[in-house]
Amino acid sequence: MTTPASRRSGGRSARRAARAAPLAANVRPVRPGLEGGQYRPLTDAQMQRIHETALDALEQIGLADAPQSGIDIMTAAGAELGDDGRLRFPRALVEDTLAKACKEITLPGRNPENDLHLSGHRVHFGTAGAAVHMVDGLGRNYRESTVQDLHDAARICDVLDNIHFVQRPMVARDIPDNREMDLNTIYACCSGTTKHVGTSFTDPSYVADAFEMLHMIAGGEDAWRARPFVSNSNCFVVPPMKFATESCEVMEACIRGGMPVLLLSAGMSGATAPSTIAGAIMQATAECLAGLVYVNAITPGHPAIFGTWPFGLDLRTGAMTVGSGEQALLSAGCAQMHKFYGLPGGAAGGASDSKLPDMQAGWEQMCSNVMAGLSGLNMVYEAAGMHASLLGFCHESLILSDDLIGQALRCVRGIEVDDDTLALDQVRAVCMGGPGHYLGTDATLGRMQKDHVYPSLADRTSPKEWAEKDKPDLIAKATARKEQILSEASAACFPEDIDRALRDRFNIHLPRK
Amino acid sequence: MTTPASRRSGGRSARRAARAAPLAANVRPVRPGLEGGQYRPLTDAQMQRIHETALDALEQIGLADAPQSGIDIMTAAGAELGDDGRLRFPRALVEDTLAKACKEITLPGRNPENDLHLSGHRVHFGTAGAAVHMVDGLGRNYRESTVQDLHDAARICDVLDNIHFVQRPMVARDIPDNREMDLNTIYACCSGTTKHVGTSFTDPSYVADAFEMLHMIAGGEDAWRARPFVSNSNCFVVPPMKFATESCEVMEACIRGGMPVLLLSAGMSGATAPSTIAGAIMQATAECLAGLVYVNAITPGHPAIFGTWPFGLDLRTGAMTVGSGEQALLSAGCAQMHKFYGLPGGAAGGASDSKLPDMQAGWEQMCSNVMAGLSGLNMVYEAAGMHASLLGFCHESLILSDDLIGQALRCVRGIEVDDDTLALDQVRAVCMGGPGHYLGTDATLGRMQKDHVYPSLADRTSPKEWAEKDKPDLIAKATARKEQILSEASAACFPEDIDRALRDRFNIHLPRK
Repeated sequence: MTTPASRRSGGRSARRAARAAPLAANVRPVRPGLEGGQYRPLTDAQMQRIHETALDALEQIGLADAPQSGIDIMTAAGAELGDDGRLRFPRALVEDTLAKACKEITLPGRNPENDLHLSGHRVHFGTAGAAVHMVDGLGRNYRESTVQDLHDAARICDVLDNIHFVQRPMVARDIPDNREMDLNTIYACCSGTTKHVGTSFTDPSYVADAFEMLHMIAGGEDAWRARPFVSNSNCFVVPPMKFATESCEVMEACIRGGMPVLLLSAGMSGATAPSTIAGAIMQATAECLAGLVYVNAITPGHPAIFGTWPFGLDLRTGAMTVGSGEQALLSAGCAQMHKFYGLPGGAAGGASDSKLPDMQAGWEQMCSNVMAGLSGLNMVYEAAGMHASLLGFCHESLILSDDLIGQALRCVRGIEVDDDTLALDQVRAVCMGGPGHYLGTDATLGRMQKDHVYPSLADRTSPKEWAEKDKPDLIAKATARKEQILSEASAACFPEDIDRALRDRFNIHLPRK
Repeated sequence: MTTPASRRSGGRSARRAARAAPLAANVRPVRPGLEGGQYRPLTDAQMQRIHETALDALEQIGLADAPQSGIDIMTAAGAELGDDGRLRFPRALVEDTLAKACKEITLPGRNPENDLHLSGHRVHFGTAGAAVHMVDGLGRNYRESTVQDLHDAARICDVLDNIHFVQRPMVARDIPDNREMDLNTIYACCSGTTKHVGTSFTDPSYVADAFEMLHMIAGGEDAWRARPFVSNSNCFVVPPMKFATESCEVMEACIRGGMPVLLLSAGMSGATAPSTIAGAIMQATAECLAGLVYVNAITPGHPAIFGTWPFGLDLRTGAMTVGSGEQALLSAGCAQMHKFYGLPGGAAGGASDSKLPDMQAGWEQMCSNVMAGLSGLNMVYEAAGMHASLLGFCHESLILSDDLIGQALRCVRGIEVDDDTLALDQVRAVCMGGPGHYLGTDATLGRMQKDHVYPSLADRTSPKEWAEKDKPDLIAKATARKEQILSEASAACFPEDIDRALRDRFNIHLPRK
């Protein structure tokens, strides 16, 4: 047995060695798909009431404005078209749909190591949105976002451990033609990351071209259908309780092409949804249940993410607000409803109202991200980089979110309780004749990597060290990291022949590397 | 019935009127003592195991270094002194203590409106700590903290709705004599706020003077004992498993003087407590149970807050870290153990490792604050203003924490589910023949104040408005608010005759107003 002194000294060198070694995936302290669910803002009885009320809403109020194709599909399945043009959904139709709906979804990445498995309370964080501004964090400036900004965001996400998917977070405002914008969005995202990508389409007539592009990237239609690495984020409703006619047509085309869909109901609580948290969740639930009927009437069991995304509103001004506690509750309550149905689901978390990556942004992003994670939300969208109530996207903020989300994921992982972690033997050995402390014990050293998340850019130095290092600025560090990432070769870029073929067939705006 | 158009227009003026009216206390969206507990990081079985292991630790390992007075008190109650000088606690003694310990504590403020009622999962946020630096947020500077800084902090806390108590957050480094420092700390805090104050004493011999001061402030010993508005934050253990001899003597004197005590076990996970979260919680639980035996052997039912405060450690460097996810789990797990015993408890939340009130500070402060609140921690200490892993306190950060904690409290309040909030009738009226939106409906307007927390300094403007307002800086806004608060007369200052008597009797360092 070593003496306390030699054990301590062994501890220091062992710590240095452990720090230098790369972490095997199975001992990383956090990873995609950790199980949440320890936080339950709703009781079972409350979920049951929300469910029953949603069924009432579908049966009594129904949804207006379905396209003719959707009316045909859903009435054939058992929905009823009223004289008022609203489609109503009998309870039995909804219950039958829930029985046959897809309960476990794999969202493939172009690299299979990045596949996401959506089931239970497994949690994943990623980007999303349609910001129209790029935020320069250091310069405190807003400007229109471009396809290059989008591509850079995808490249940054590709190397951040705690960003698990890349749904298009901002709009390529430098491409005025909507068809070209949609196609270049796919190109910009997929050539920047091998993680799963999400996107949307402005018009149903663009979908065929998109599939042509995706088949080329995948190496043929079969390869695409086997591993669809892009999903369709689809705002199929215009709340309250109306189908979005053209988006529904997009959805039909995507389903037929084998693309997973995100059934996205983005009501604004107090404007297009009730101002109460329960009411907004109930309405979004009803709307997504209608969408689920629609999807499963087309292709039973087609992968569809239950996307109840209610947002908040500042009722003093009527402006959207996404960084509030009310927002965090909206998304966490939705996550519980997804689990009530046993469905893979997603909602918004992690967005900020602040214009900049400042203290407000930090607290707003953490609040909804950690609550979404603890509630077991499968897909936390808008989790990183999103500012100005969804109007601005910031690369520096995205990079810092890797630390922020890593911390949230550590919270999701929770507390392990067993003989090893309770450590009674260790307490005994340390206190009774031992060194009187736990620094450098085998138990401490053996767990230092697998139990603890160490941030990359967040600062833990003492005031003295910090001053000696010239008081490093958090945003400046993130900017330096961004420049480093973008200066390196990307593992995600397309093989040269595929890239050439894509550029021959489509008008790709990103310059050739 | 009004038309949609007139209802909308009535909505705008009604919103303006509602905004101008002060909020009655009973309709404020958040307040001290909201019930948490929706987040449960530990299962019932896990809590039982932690409890059983803590009992084993107390029975088999026990605590060293009790003062002779404590040995006499605790052995008379049934503890056993071993040949190794360690006091061991039979299970029956701990169980008997738990049966007679105080389960509901009122912590009075000098103003009864600020009384805190600790029971169940009622949550309160406040300051605490012993920072030695004052952080100048705008100037990015650290300097030694002074008694004036402490008094200013108390004055700021006094006007912030979401800071519910003022435990001394920093040390008056400009008062070299420890007795004078302790007495001036009470003066500086109590003359700055009528909220409940917490403090500590460097030496048992200072306690008598402190009581003399408190009796003078209260208007006599009986008035003090009826409403003890200061409690003793007492680090009665030096983890692992040793009593802090002098602090125990302080505690005995405080209990005899009728002062509530905070039984504070501040182990560092990986140094003075096991590196595992479960182990650190277990050891802190054992230590606080020993403290509870001690307190109740002196005065059965004396108000004692179960202060399991395990802190984190960055094992790469051996430096303390308080802003991590591990820290948030430590405190949330402790909160659950308090409820396992049905005891009022407290732990640390809301502190940051960052040197400045930046994005890192925001995410770190929110993470542990919101998780502490959701877990139902009665007293969230260090919840505001705390930086540099407890070494620095920042007035600007304190002010911003009012928004941050207000948001956390909104999350604690949770989701109300009833017919009104489910809003089916409202959805029907809006969708079927109604305006098609919820803006300005009676239901929306009627709830806009009582359901929603509106931040004071956090920014929700659009990028356009923000640019027009010259891109306001969050920290600069907090500095302006600080200057405004400190320029106004304080409602907490002592009556002139009491102040004169205190200054005649004690060497008060703060200048007379």
